Amino acid sequence: MAGNSFGKLFNLTTFGESHGVALGGVIDGCPSGLDIDIDAIQNDLNRRKPGQSEIVTQRKEPDTVKFLSGIFGGKTTGTPIGFIIENANQKSNDYSHIKDVYRPSHADYTYDKKYGVRDYRGGGRSSARETVCRVVAGAIAKQLLKDVKIYAYVSSVGDIVLNKPINELDFTLTESNIVRCPDTETADKMIERIKEIRKEGDTIGGTVGCVIKNVPVGLGEPVFDKLHAELGKAMLSINAVKGFEYGSGFEGSKMKGSEHNDIFNADGTTKTNLSGGIQGGISNGMDIYFNVAFKPVATIMQSQETIDNQGNVVDMHGKGRHDPCVVPRAVPIVEAMAALVLADFYLINKLYH
Amino acid sequence: MAGNSFGKLFNLTTFGESHGVALGGVIDGCPSGLDIDIDAIQNDLNRRKPGQSEIVTQRKEPDTVKFLSGIFGGKTTGTPIGFIIENANQKSNDYSHIKDVYRPSHADYTYDKKYGVRDYRGGGRSSARETVCRVVAGAIAKQLLKDVKIYAYVSSVGDIVLNKPINELDFTLTESNIVRCPDTETADKMIERIKEIRKEGDTIGGTVGCVIKNVPVGLGEPVFDKLHAELGKAMLSINAVKGFEYGSGFEGSKMKGSEHNDIFNADGTTKTNLSGGIQGGISNGMDIYFNVAFKPVATIMQSQETIDNQGNVVDMHGKGRHDPCVVPRAVPIVEAMAALVLADFYLINKLYH
Amino acid sequence: MAGNSFGKLFNLTTFGESHGVALGGVIDGCPSGLDIDIDAIQNDLNRRKPGQSEIVTQRKEPDTVKFLSGIFGGKTTGTPIGFIIENANQKSNDYSHIKDVYRPSHADYTYDKKYGVRDYRGGGRSSARETVCRVVAGAIAKQLLKDVKIYAYVSSVGDIVLNKPINELDFTLTESNIVRCPDTETADKMIERIKEIRKEGDTIGGTVGCVIKNVPVGLGEPVFDKLHAELGKAMLSINAVKGFEYGSGFEGSKMKGSEHNDIFNADGTTKTNLSGGIQGGISNGMDIYFNVAFKPVATIMQSQETIDNQGNVVDMHGKGRHDPCVVPRAVPIVEAMAALVLADFYLINKLYH
Amino acid sequence: MAGNSFGKLFNLTTFGESHGVALGGVIDGCPSGLDIDIDAIQNDLNRRKPGQSEIVTQRKEPDTVKFLSGIFGGKTTGTPIGFIIENANQKSNDYSHIKDVYRPSHADYTYDKKYGVRDYRGGGRSSARETVCRVVAGAIAKQLLKDVKIYAYVSSVGDIVLNKPINELDFTLTESNIVRCPDTETADKMIERIKEIRKEGDTIGGTVGCVIKNVPVGLGEPVFDKLHAELGKAMLSINAVKGFEYGSGFEGSKMKGSEHNDIFNADGTTKTNLSGGIQGGISNGMDIYFNVAFKPVATIMQSQETIDNQGNVVDMHGKGRHDPCVVPRAVPIVEAMAALVLADFYLINKLYH
Repeated sequence: MAGNSFGKLFNLTTFGESHGVALGGVIDGCPSGLDIDIDAIQNDLNRRKPGQSEIVTQRKEPDTVKFLSGIFGGKTTGTPIGFIIENANQKSNDYSHIKDVYRPSHADYTYDKKYGVRDYRGGGRSSARETVCRVVAGAIAKQLLKDVKIYAYVSSVGDIVLNKPINELDFTLTESNIVRCPDTETADKMIERIKEIRKEGDTIGGTVGCVIKNVPVGLGEPVFDKLHAELGKAMLSINAVKGFEYGSGFEGSKMKGSEHNDIFNADGTTKTNLSGGIQGGISNGMDIYFNVAFKPVATIMQSQETIDNQGNVVDMHGKGRHDPCVVPRAVPIVEAMAALVLADFYLINKLYH
Repeated sequence: MAGNSFGKLFNLTTFGESHGVALGGVIDGCPSGLDIDIDAIQNDLNRRKPGQSEIVTQRKEPDTVKFLSGIFGGKTTGTPIGFIIENANQKSNDYSHIKDVYRPSHADYTYDKKYGVRDYRGGGRSSARETVCRVVAGAIAKQLLKDVKIYAYVSSVGDIVLNKPINELDFTLTESNIVRCPDTETADKMIERIKEIRKEGDTIGGTVGCVIKNVPVGLGEPVFDKLHAELGKAMLSINAVKGFEYGSGFEGSKMKGSEHNDIFNADGTTKTNLSGGIQGGISNGMDIYFNVAFKPVATIMQSQETIDNQGNVVDMHGKGRHDPCVVPRAVPIVEAMAALVLADFYLINKLYH
Repeated sequence: MAGNSFGKLFNLTTFGESHGVALGGVIDGCPSGLDIDIDAIQNDLNRRKPGQSEIVTQRKEPDTVKFLSGIFGGKTTGTPIGFIIENANQKSNDYSHIKDVYRPSHADYTYDKKYGVRDYRGGGRSSARETVCRVVAGAIAKQLLKDVKIYAYVSSVGDIVLNKPINELDFTLTESNIVRCPDTETADKMIERIKEIRKEGDTIGGTVGCVIKNVPVGLGEPVFDKLHAELGKAMLSINAVKGFEYGSGFEGSKMKGSEHNDIFNADGTTKTNLSGGIQGGISNGMDIYFNVAFKPVATIMQSQETIDNQGNVVDMHGKGRHDPCVVPRAVPIVEAMAALVLADFYLINKLYH
Repeated sequence: MAGNSFGKLFNLTTFGESHGVALGGVIDGCPSGLDIDIDAIQNDLNRRKPGQSEIVTQRKEPDTVKFLSGIFGGKTTGTPIGFIIENANQKSNDYSHIKDVYRPSHADYTYDKKYGVRDYRGGGRSSARETVCRVVAGAIAKQLLKDVKIYAYVSSVGDIVLNKPINELDFTLTESNIVRCPDTETADKMIERIKEIRKEGDTIGGTVGCVIKNVPVGLGEPVFDKLHAELGKAMLSINAVKGFEYGSGFEGSKMKGSEHNDIFNADGTTKTNLSGGIQGGISNGMDIYFNVAFKPVATIMQSQETIDNQGNVVDMHGKGRHDPCVVPRAVPIVEAMAALVLADFYLINKLYH
């Protein structure tokens, strides 16, 4: 109820604060007998890790996952998979200056009003550090999904937009550059843009696209738990996300039915795919694709006016090690959340077969 | 699990097919002692009703709600509120021509593949007729929320866009025109556009905006069940929705942190509101606002090629009474889903107080 | 959350008061393609029905179920199954004398304190009339479970106890007598006892036993949702139940391990079955059996001292048509709840296969 | 769904195997601002700990809880409380002899059939070692419940039964003896009995009673989630439990209504309390009391015939360090589960106030 769990049959519960002892999670409902590739999990963690390149925060964390249960002899046992990621680089002192201060467009004010108390170190529970647990669980979900392939990538940084049709993208290029854009030329511009922004002590927003291939027909539950509704919730639950659209998205709202309808081929595939692989909330076997908008990081290295918890106006200046743009590190998080949604529906769908 | 329930503490379960005996629902978790204004419920049903104006489907349904339990002497008793809406105007014969045919961009194909069987009459469970139950429950949620005011309105029809800042909108005008746009001039253009489209036998998409005022601080649960994540899921669960954005939305992804941050006033309000009334997934007391994209209705009054369930290519032509554009009737549905989300978080928030 | 739903994958939500317009329910999660035998459902309703024999309440209700959705062409469609049972025989005037009075050992006092309001007619929501919905859903669950056979029966009325080992019981005799005891001689004594009690204007308790055959190995989830824990909850949720034991039960607490352990045969069956068909919370393929204790009905046809809602001591005398002993009518309710538990675990178990 | 979580608003998820790296849990939904008394938690762990006296298993485990999140400055923050208990004394070699063998009346056979794989060391997930996590969470729930006092105690060991009315028990004596019976004379007999049994290499069952005082009126949800139904499920989910009864229990099934009804005093209390503090599934403010039956431990130090996973009949002899009788160590577990149920309903009840 308190919102730290995700998924019904493939269920993840997470815990942990940015600067506490450890973050961790419990995956309940993963079927038994699944071979677990620990390296693949760690690889996704490394893609999310701070300090991985010159355009992300220089905070250093090994982000090594330690499994405590649920895996025996390299296989899942059907019992809950508990895991932790220890916080190695907890410089809590970095945060004493914000103990009583509400940072603009952060969660400090709302947490304080809701709970009457908060762990202010590094944002505590509201920090995007929590997503490290999602990446672990998502990596296991990917292994459960086997042939389903999830490709997230940076589709824009500020006003630099990847302008290529989705079916012309070569996802083998995504990891070939530090911004994770599957088009080298655009990637270079994005990297340049982020470097400029960092020099200004500012931050910038961006978008992450995602294409999912080989999805079986039938995933998603009609009415409230439509496949795209759960994907939307999943993406909107990621820190800094402001919008989600799938298939034709917002552009689709400008179209006519005669333009927008996807005409069937005899085999049930469709000639176009403005539906985005989902019809009536249920996957139809075509590629699923969607786009996620991220706002600029709220912590900037410039002076800003704000207030403290007594209502005094104070001046604050960002300190510490922060991302000038979150989208490069958000790519594995988007993939992880998509994997969690699909794994859940994959299991729910067994009801009918 | 099968996705016909929404909400955790204020929980709605719906049932019913477009052309079955009745649709209905159960609201579980509504606190006792709430005075129920039946007229207000029926009024919202009337705003959603087919046949209400010349720009919506001419199908006639009284859409009268009948309460079966949970209300005694005009007040809720704390026990589940069961209700039904009988299907008065079931012309099932209208649908015999699509019994074996998969209509393009409808849910016929995916339902058949998922369940192996479907009630094909009027789309059965996949019909937007299901939302009649959401409007009933949403109208009760509004009564629980008392001072919280939810204003949905049509923000675009095709490429005709309401271009006014949100804080300049006069929501008393929304119901003054049949398209439900709170700007008379723009409304006229939208109505004209819909009439043209209908003449062409075509359909068109649009967007619905929503502003929520007087939200108490503290609603929303951090991490997975962020307030905007649940609002997003709620909206994406409405038939034909392709996208959701709140606050600065997709535009926010192009901004810098120094432009996007909302600076506090001494009283905790903010000078700007790009956050859209939500910080860290929790309401901050400022207005919540969001925008929802609807695709054009898939049923058009033109010939389209499609396939039947044997894979034969067939030609079909839309029959019956359909909406040329869903957004005017979607306005009360968006409000209802927003009310359900807020009522749920309002109750969850009692945990902390 | 408010407790009117049961089951996770095979989920029943019920609504309705004893003397409201109708009771009803929604079954969500029943797989598609199941042939529904309406007569079998009505037959179970008839076994629960008031007025069915001279030893039960003479209140008359047709208790005819009306399905509103989810069944098409005689088969389930995978969408929610909505149903209602109209209250035909609502003599609300019978209850005006208890409007302000708390009947001893009824739920009047606790409902009033919890909700501040109650539908006092016939106990409202606290009436065992609610179980009519459970019988409908249970009858569908039985059809889903196919070969699994659930045999409930009256095992005692007051101090008249059926003293036969479970494996010597002939369940074809259960329905041969009005008390539903599968031993004709004991049945006669029980019937006699109930008639005496009724003449005294009193009521008496009893127990219902249940044996479940052909349960597949593997049902039940370890730790919190053990098969017997959910069966226990299911039985304890039935009105008037005070205790539940399975397998060796309370007697098992007096035994030694060397006596109690069930030794395996080579095929995995066990020579004895003190485990009651469940080991570690998971079915082992042997017969499941359990026993449920029901208190005497609280409404007696004798004068009793009690209080009203102002704390005044008043004298009251039972009126209306009540059961002298609930166990004969409880037999199909116990079966229904057992079927709901098993159907749910049957679906959950698909996760692993 | 996979059954490793308990509670709706005050929710515990546990993980961990008997001989894995660690066991642990996540408490989600504990309100913020609660002062946490770590010593009280450790004290309950010590009451459950192996090796605490001569009548329990001599296995040594420090059972020290380590909190990872959710507590800051000695207070809960409203975020999830993650914790682990490391397995210090993992002699996995003790269990190599049972790798392929199904121990009689253990969960080996059913786990293998359900999951196709199991962690056989010490029973893995099916071990009662899992309850260590329940005790941690229960101890926090007790702190949330403040004035509500939960007194569990040993009410019988084999045929040695504590024969005193509940209201004559002095619970200050429970911890004065190693068997945890609040009557010194009976305690001595019980201890003697357990010592004899252990000498025989055998085990014996017993019962644990529990009395809960100062429960506010109104806890429990009607229909499926009755207070006693959830208490029953909670108790039946504890390893080795075979039965649960509350209030008059199985004895109540032999009584007449005129004997069983609890007559009200003017202040709403009742002159007798055969209802066991619960009417219609809702607490009435009187003492809640119940009794829980535990079977004898299945691991005995005697030769037993059994089978291996190939269906070969083999002879096995218990090894290792096991309890001759579980009830003394079960006392804090019963309290913990009762506390979890009450804390959950305490929070749910805030809906109505």
